[in-house]
Amino acid sequence: MKACVFDGRTVRVAPSYADPTPAAGEVCIRVRLAGVCRTDLEIVKGYMGFAGVLGHEFVGTALAGRHEGRRVVGEINCVCGSCDMCQAGLPTHCRRRTTLGIAGRDGAFAEMLVLPEANLHAVPDHVSDRQAVFAEPLAAAIQIRRQVSLKPGQKIIVLGDGRLGQLVGQVLAAWGLRPTVVGRSPAKLAIMRSGGVEAIAAHEARPAKDADVVVECTGAADGLAMAMAFTRPRGTIVLKSTVADTAGLNLAPLVVDEITVVGSRCGPMADAIEMLARRQVNVEPLITGEYALDQAPEALEAAARPEAIKVLIRFNV
Amino acid sequence: MKACVFDGRTVRVAPSYADPTPAAGEVCIRVRLAGVCRTDLEIVKGYMGFAGVLGHEFVGTALAGRHEGRRVVGEINCVCGSCDMCQAGLPTHCRRRTTLGIAGRDGAFAEMLVLPEANLHAVPDHVSDRQAVFAEPLAAAIQIRRQVSLKPGQKIIVLGDGRLGQLVGQVLAAWGLRPTVVGRSPAKLAIMRSGGVEAIAAHEARPAKDADVVVECTGAADGLAMAMAFTRPRGTIVLKSTVADTAGLNLAPLVVDEITVVGSRCGPMADAIEMLARRQVNVEPLITGEYALDQAPEALEAAARPEAIKVLIRFNV
Repeated sequence: MKACVFDGRTVRVAPSYADPTPAAGEVCIRVRLAGVCRTDLEIVKGYMGFAGVLGHEFVGTALAGRHEGRRVVGEINCVCGSCDMCQAGLPTHCRRRTTLGIAGRDGAFAEMLVLPEANLHAVPDHVSDRQAVFAEPLAAAIQIRRQVSLKPGQKIIVLGDGRLGQLVGQVLAAWGLRPTVVGRSPAKLAIMRSGGVEAIAAHEARPAKDADVVVECTGAADGLAMAMAFTRPRGTIVLKSTVADTAGLNLAPLVVDEITVVGSRCGPMADAIEMLARRQVNVEPLITGEYALDQAPEALEAAARPEAIKVLIRFNV
Repeated sequence: MKACVFDGRTVRVAPSYADPTPAAGEVCIRVRLAGVCRTDLEIVKGYMGFAGVLGHEFVGTALAGRHEGRRVVGEINCVCGSCDMCQAGLPTHCRRRTTLGIAGRDGAFAEMLVLPEANLHAVPDHVSDRQAVFAEPLAAAIQIRRQVSLKPGQKIIVLGDGRLGQLVGQVLAAWGLRPTVVGRSPAKLAIMRSGGVEAIAAHEARPAKDADVVVECTGAADGLAMAMAFTRPRGTIVLKSTVADTAGLNLAPLVVDEITVVGSRCGPMADAIEMLARRQVNVEPLITGEYALDQAPEALEAAARPEAIKVLIRFNV
């Protein structure tokens, strides 16, 4: 099969990569559409030690099992079911997990992928491929509410107007909350506003240590410092950016202001599909590019540009 | 009066510093015994922008008001009562606060200090000065339980065997929990063990991402990284160290493991006095030096040495 492969140094499209072989309980999926995530960009910088087929956001057609012939999306963490984390009901933290296109398992930028059948969720017919491909990042946005108590009347700031910030802003608004998204791109802030979400430019925002909750989605090294400046004493920062280098970061405000920082990663995909099915979020305006698999390296480059939001890779199906 | 003063660059004992003048609602206190805290050492490095009389841990005699003639300890944050934080029941986070010997208010390394009468707590007769002087840092240890749910059976690690780590270990044990203190000083670990608290050397500890709660009391720049290595996915780190420089810190594990970090500062002083009165903690073994006010600069130097735990400054009363 054709696949976009990272060998630890460079990204290329391999015309005849070995077809994946499903293990017991696993199902082969023909990929229809895939999405480029910031994590993919981190991987190709060599930050995560992964080599293999890239990609973890996808919608495809199950080729076997109870979903055979239907469109599916899939949980990206493949788990053992028996370690202490799995037994504690925290399978996304399985000690022996592999993660699609991120750790120990080939990903979705290929004509076919395999996942455990238990990971799959059927996509309702009225949810398009271009909507369904957002299920994974949308679930990551939904995860916030599973970890932090959010209430109407709270002052909630979302830092970052990129891929995740857009989804977080929409999800919070769909829940009846009144977030303010703070970002650097006039075009991206305009998209937020067109969806009815308050959005202001970072250079106009006045951090006053008065937000109850700040969701940090900047993906930038200074994101946490900025979040601390916006958060009230005893407030909460939801940390979504995996930043590897924090040179010069002063963490003293966390202690002095007794702030709680909650790291937040993958979320409930079934809830994401339900929000898409109910049209509670509008993902189409977030698509800023679509490339064929042959142009996957160009898709990654496009996704890294400041003006990009979500870049897709389409397959001939 | 005589006072130990930091002018922004050097520490000296001023023989005739102006006596403090109580404002409305404030009371003058004759200091009997004071303690040196890590914050004092940070201040004299110039890290906190404070100039004035140092010190915030003390026991003294109230010279007026309803506690007149009695021994008292005092809450160090002096608050407005009307800002959003005070109105929200978070007076230690008052937007207009001054803090004894730390911010905007002369401190306790002086023959006299003033505090609002509302800040004072009477010391029971059977609690000695050498015990009562621990009320403020002990309250900071007690604060942990006000912010984090702690349950028997949890794996709890305390990182750091210094001033605060010792108190945190003792307080957790007094609550019927089974903490393990991890430290670098054989002598300090021996003190913990003599109090019945499990204590192991840092070089023998094997971080396995399996602790439910890790209390970070190292005061070191790498303390948070060490804490992340001990904390299980979805576990909690209580951050007590105010570290201003975190060069090279990788915060990605917070997100990947969805860890919660809770910054924690001042605590309930009345609870601290009660624990001292009930002999639930044993602070005497933690006193490693006692100096006269004239030798306050030497006391600060002694407190900065690796072998020091709590260094006291005594007054002629």
